[in-house]
Amino acid sequence: MNKVGIAAYGITPFSKEDKKIENLLMDSVVDLFVKNPKIDKKNIEGVMVSTNNNSKYLGPIVAEMAGIQPKTTISIENLCNSGTNSIVSAYSYIASGLVDMVLVSGAERFDSPGQILDWDNSRGQFKHPIFWASLFTKSYKNHFSVSDEDLAIVSVKNHKQAKSNPNSLSNKTFSVEDVIKSKQITEDLRLLDCSRSCTGSASIVLASEKIMKDITSEPIWISGIGQKTTSAGFTKNNSFHSMESTKEASNTALKMANKEIKDIDVVELHDAFSVCEPMALESMGFSDNGKSMRMIKELHQTDNFKINPRGGLIGTGHPLGATGIAQTIEVVQQLQDRADSRQIDNVTTGLVHNMSAAATSSTVLVLEK
Amino acid sequence: MNKVGIAAYGITPFSKEDKKIENLLMDSVVDLFVKNPKIDKKNIEGVMVSTNNNSKYLGPIVAEMAGIQPKTTISIENLCNSGTNSIVSAYSYIASGLVDMVLVSGAERFDSPGQILDWDNSRGQFKHPIFWASLFTKSYKNHFSVSDEDLAIVSVKNHKQAKSNPNSLSNKTFSVEDVIKSKQITEDLRLLDCSRSCTGSASIVLASEKIMKDITSEPIWISGIGQKTTSAGFTKNNSFHSMESTKEASNTALKMANKEIKDIDVVELHDAFSVCEPMALESMGFSDNGKSMRMIKELHQTDNFKINPRGGLIGTGHPLGATGIAQTIEVVQQLQDRADSRQIDNVTTGLVHNMSAAATSSTVLVLEK
Repeated sequence: MNKVGIAAYGITPFSKEDKKIENLLMDSVVDLFVKNPKIDKKNIEGVMVSTNNNSKYLGPIVAEMAGIQPKTTISIENLCNSGTNSIVSAYSYIASGLVDMVLVSGAERFDSPGQILDWDNSRGQFKHPIFWASLFTKSYKNHFSVSDEDLAIVSVKNHKQAKSNPNSLSNKTFSVEDVIKSKQITEDLRLLDCSRSCTGSASIVLASEKIMKDITSEPIWISGIGQKTTSAGFTKNNSFHSMESTKEASNTALKMANKEIKDIDVVELHDAFSVCEPMALESMGFSDNGKSMRMIKELHQTDNFKINPRGGLIGTGHPLGATGIAQTIEVVQQLQDRADSRQIDNVTTGLVHNMSAAATSSTVLVLEK
Repeated sequence: MNKVGIAAYGITPFSKEDKKIENLLMDSVVDLFVKNPKIDKKNIEGVMVSTNNNSKYLGPIVAEMAGIQPKTTISIENLCNSGTNSIVSAYSYIASGLVDMVLVSGAERFDSPGQILDWDNSRGQFKHPIFWASLFTKSYKNHFSVSDEDLAIVSVKNHKQAKSNPNSLSNKTFSVEDVIKSKQITEDLRLLDCSRSCTGSASIVLASEKIMKDITSEPIWISGIGQKTTSAGFTKNNSFHSMESTKEASNTALKMANKEIKDIDVVELHDAFSVCEPMALESMGFSDNGKSMRMIKELHQTDNFKINPRGGLIGTGHPLGATGIAQTIEVVQQLQDRADSRQIDNVTTGLVHNMSAAATSSTVLVLEK
């Protein structure tokens, strides 16, 4: 198989801005080209757009606005993990030999139509994600004797880390007490336990090994890919305190990369709600089931940014189609030693975890220098 | 590169039915599984949905409804050539080695939101496809001294061929006079020159060479793939009487398949409007520029179904997300000698041409036994 890596990235601050989707996509595309003058647009053979926006033909629109005439143009959607699915698609096109360079651009508006999955009648009248998150939280707390105060640490840590990320939606820090006293959304969920939908844009360029050296001297290679969809309906989950799709995706990705979980130096994981962080860590094998809050607390107390250095979805905001790409960019920056005040020491292998709709589907990527 | 082929297909009649998109997708998925009892759903590792419908997370929804738990699930959109783009995506995932079998399902409702490209302000107030088709028609007629009566042959031929296709929207035949006397839509376009948006569904399974023999003894291989996007805006076209993106896509696909245009025995091409048939034939090199109406007339007079045997978009109807897949299924049936009264003699190599938005993007596939 042809080796495929990440050659370039562009990203702009997440906000609540009211902006047309095509202009939003272009924000990070322009940032990418400004940062990477060595990229000849003539060599870009694919443009893939990741979004839940209802606008059509965004691949050709971005291509025309950016001055690219590619072979392939498509829009890709799979709710909250559209971003990593687009990266995997670009990887496939390159690894198969059809093309050598693909621009992947993801963006979302704050009012994205991807926030509620109408089809899932198993949710009854409770269709908003806060309801599955609430059930996950209750199940996790009961099963592992974890308290609201314990889980609040996730939000405290990720908001703290987001303050070091110039692109994050939030730049405030909070105490455990602040989280507990924030507006109660459901019996088990407070406002500060939730990531917020927002407006944002993130783009990357993937390239084959053959042409990589013409673009960058610091390529980051995608060495592992794992994906799993267990269902679309939330109640088909085998457990409400673990993520089955994440477990399978993670195993597949690590096996492909020939790595073990202990080899991972930095993780961007999908903390749509506080409880998702320990659940994802445990499902990926970073800790025994029910034990990862210890690890999260220790990392927080020692100001170790290993988990969600950019601030997670909770601190950075969650523009659905851009999230998986923004997570990937953070791991790329960490591997390139370019993460400024968020930089972790001695990073050689990173992992991205992106999931949709109560973890009914997950994508895991392993990235290496 | 791993060899990739088409292992199975399912399709249901095109109509004006008012039906939910997920149920529509399932219509052809169920048909596929009924026809192919050898397919073990456990081995399906990808579900890709082709549609312009605004519903989200249709990949996992189809997977759950069909009883599949794949690795990858995505929805793919690129307006009218979403179908062939989904096939190329499935091809890439398999050829790259990430998966071995992918279900591609395309569907559209008659009221698809993909019919008008709002973004394209170069169209002025004339955003409906009939306006670019009208300009194409005027330009083609003027440039090559072709008459309305000449072009009407395309509609007459394709309606005749559609009558042999049990899944087509139309089962009526028309004379040249009928076409000319049908409702005038623009100065250069009559109602019977236009394909009609409709409700429809078509699915195929793609598989790697490794597992193909477990599914079918009649695989059809994808030997050539060509794609090109020149722009999103209609007026960026270099010419209004040829299709630049089609020309490039066709050259790439034939080169990959190591074939010449004279080797092609059957063609499914994108006749969204009458004028598109001669334009596509000429852009792919089946005839000199401005000369293909002779070929079309001769085929019509001799009841030779070589071009658009299933009846084209004009006769069969145009459910956007399903069209490229339905075109591919027709060529598969022709290659397998299973096209009933539409069957062409001695078919060994076929071609699919699918395009979007005034031919600003095109996909061409070469298929072989």
